[in-house]
Amino acid sequence: VDASVEGVHFDRRWLSLAEVGARAFHAALSDLAAMGARPVAALSSLVVPPSVGASALRRLAAGQAEAARELRCPVVGGNLSRGRELSVTTTAIGVSRFPLTRAGARAGDEIWLVGAVGLAAAGLAWLRSGGTSRSPLDARSRRAVAACVGAWKRPTALVRDGLRLAGAAHAAIDVSDGLAGDVGHLAEASGVRLVVEAPALRRLLPPALLRACEVLKQDALSLALSGGEDYALVATGPSIARPRRAHRIGRVEKGSGACLEAEDGKPHPLGSGFDHFSGRS
Amino acid sequence: VDASVEGVHFDRRWLSLAEVGARAFHAALSDLAAMGARPVAALSSLVVPPSVGASALRRLAAGQAEAARELRCPVVGGNLSRGRELSVTTTAIGVSRFPLTRAGARAGDEIWLVGAVGLAAAGLAWLRSGGTSRSPLDARSRRAVAACVGAWKRPTALVRDGLRLAGAAHAAIDVSDGLAGDVGHLAEASGVRLVVEAPALRRLLPPALLRACEVLKQDALSLALSGGEDYALVATGPSIARPRRAHRIGRVEKGSGACLEAEDGKPHPLGSGFDHFSGRS
Repeated sequence: VDASVEGVHFDRRWLSLAEVGARAFHAALSDLAAMGARPVAALSSLVVPPSVGASALRRLAAGQAEAARELRCPVVGGNLSRGRELSVTTTAIGVSRFPLTRAGARAGDEIWLVGAVGLAAAGLAWLRSGGTSRSPLDARSRRAVAACVGAWKRPTALVRDGLRLAGAAHAAIDVSDGLAGDVGHLAEASGVRLVVEAPALRRLLPPALLRACEVLKQDALSLALSGGEDYALVATGPSIARPRRAHRIGRVEKGSGACLEAEDGKPHPLGSGFDHFSGRS
Repeated sequence: VDASVEGVHFDRRWLSLAEVGARAFHAALSDLAAMGARPVAALSSLVVPPSVGASALRRLAAGQAEAARELRCPVVGGNLSRGRELSVTTTAIGVSRFPLTRAGARAGDEIWLVGAVGLAAAGLAWLRSGGTSRSPLDARSRRAVAACVGAWKRPTALVRDGLRLAGAAHAAIDVSDGLAGDVGHLAEASGVRLVVEAPALRRLLPPALLRACEVLKQDALSLALSGGEDYALVATGPSIARPRRAHRIGRVEKGSGACLEAEDGKPHPLGSGFDHFSGRS
């Protein structure tokens, strides 16, 4: 079950109500994806302030319905309540014979990344900056920024990838708090040490992220590590089992905690220590 | 899935946070009870304003946990989110081989009531009146009022009764909108006419309700028809199958709509027309 609350998880300045609905749905289903579960049905509970009328509510529901079709997870029930603040709470029900959890990573595993990280954070940074830059953008930069904004506005739960991971991985999590934090969650729950290798992660950074980060004057690797809301999946498992679309970004060792191994081979703690590494507060 | 929103469904002037938690849980499970389902698990999604601290949150969760134990329905997951307004959204998962719905009532069925109606509404009316009366209350009146307030503060989902109805009834609903309205929902969904017989319903009014209504200067039958939040169950089924604790309060006929058949045999429409009948707006 996952809640999207106006002012906390979304801002209607930047999202249409259809996007609010679809986004909330994908965010909830992403948790199923990370467990390697097949979606069965969803329930939607809406708290609706008086300012949101019937037609606005229909647009929100249309966004949910489109996501439900896309993810083949019908909405089978729900609740509608008045309140002062708009919120969308989605319960996703799925089945899995061998559900993946955060606790299961073993020393010797690879760390896998499925999907892109950083795009959504770059898109949000662009929207927060007012959606303008000092100098005019060339066409490629405009496309890059638009791709990042699109990644933030319309994320996709990686349900099929999760099903592929289910038969291969030892542990998994979806990247909602940022890769650094979520890798830390895997390490803590599994009682092992996760080493993200900077060169491996850097090779996976999407060209659109690199270009958008030039516009934003931000470090792409930092955004990839700190930015959530892409709903990528991180998993660990044996090299031999690595499924399609899962890319190696590091390794699991005995020990505890999570770190980023820089190009020079030096480890930098991830999680709370990450911002010091990136040189930003 | 069911939401309890502060200011809409509850008021912390009158409920402790433990009561808020337990009440929200029973309200959600009541929907399972009305479907004749056996509870399996629940998920709890909380939106918590900054004014509610960790210890207050623990009290709320303790109320949920107590209800979960009582109803044998463990909380297996949840979500915690910041927001401006306190809300508790509970998803209840249950199983039923032959789930009861609102659509299934047949002409020839009896209407059954399980549990009391009106007590919670009387309790809420008492709290709204400031919890005082012009003249001092005698001991019996005090007990009656306390019973009504207790019914409102600590409702119980009638899960076992729902399971008994599952093998016997054709349709069921829990009384959350008030008996009159919920009988109307059964009539509409089933495409039949439901006739609530005033003498039969009157015989079931609890003594505490009658006494509390004297104090409140309210008509007990009206409160029993209009008051929700008791989480009683209304069902229809054949006389021969009527289970324990289910009491006949009327009959199902061909036709449409719901009515109250008064002592003189005259029908009065229920639902929107009810307030006219009771003489109050």
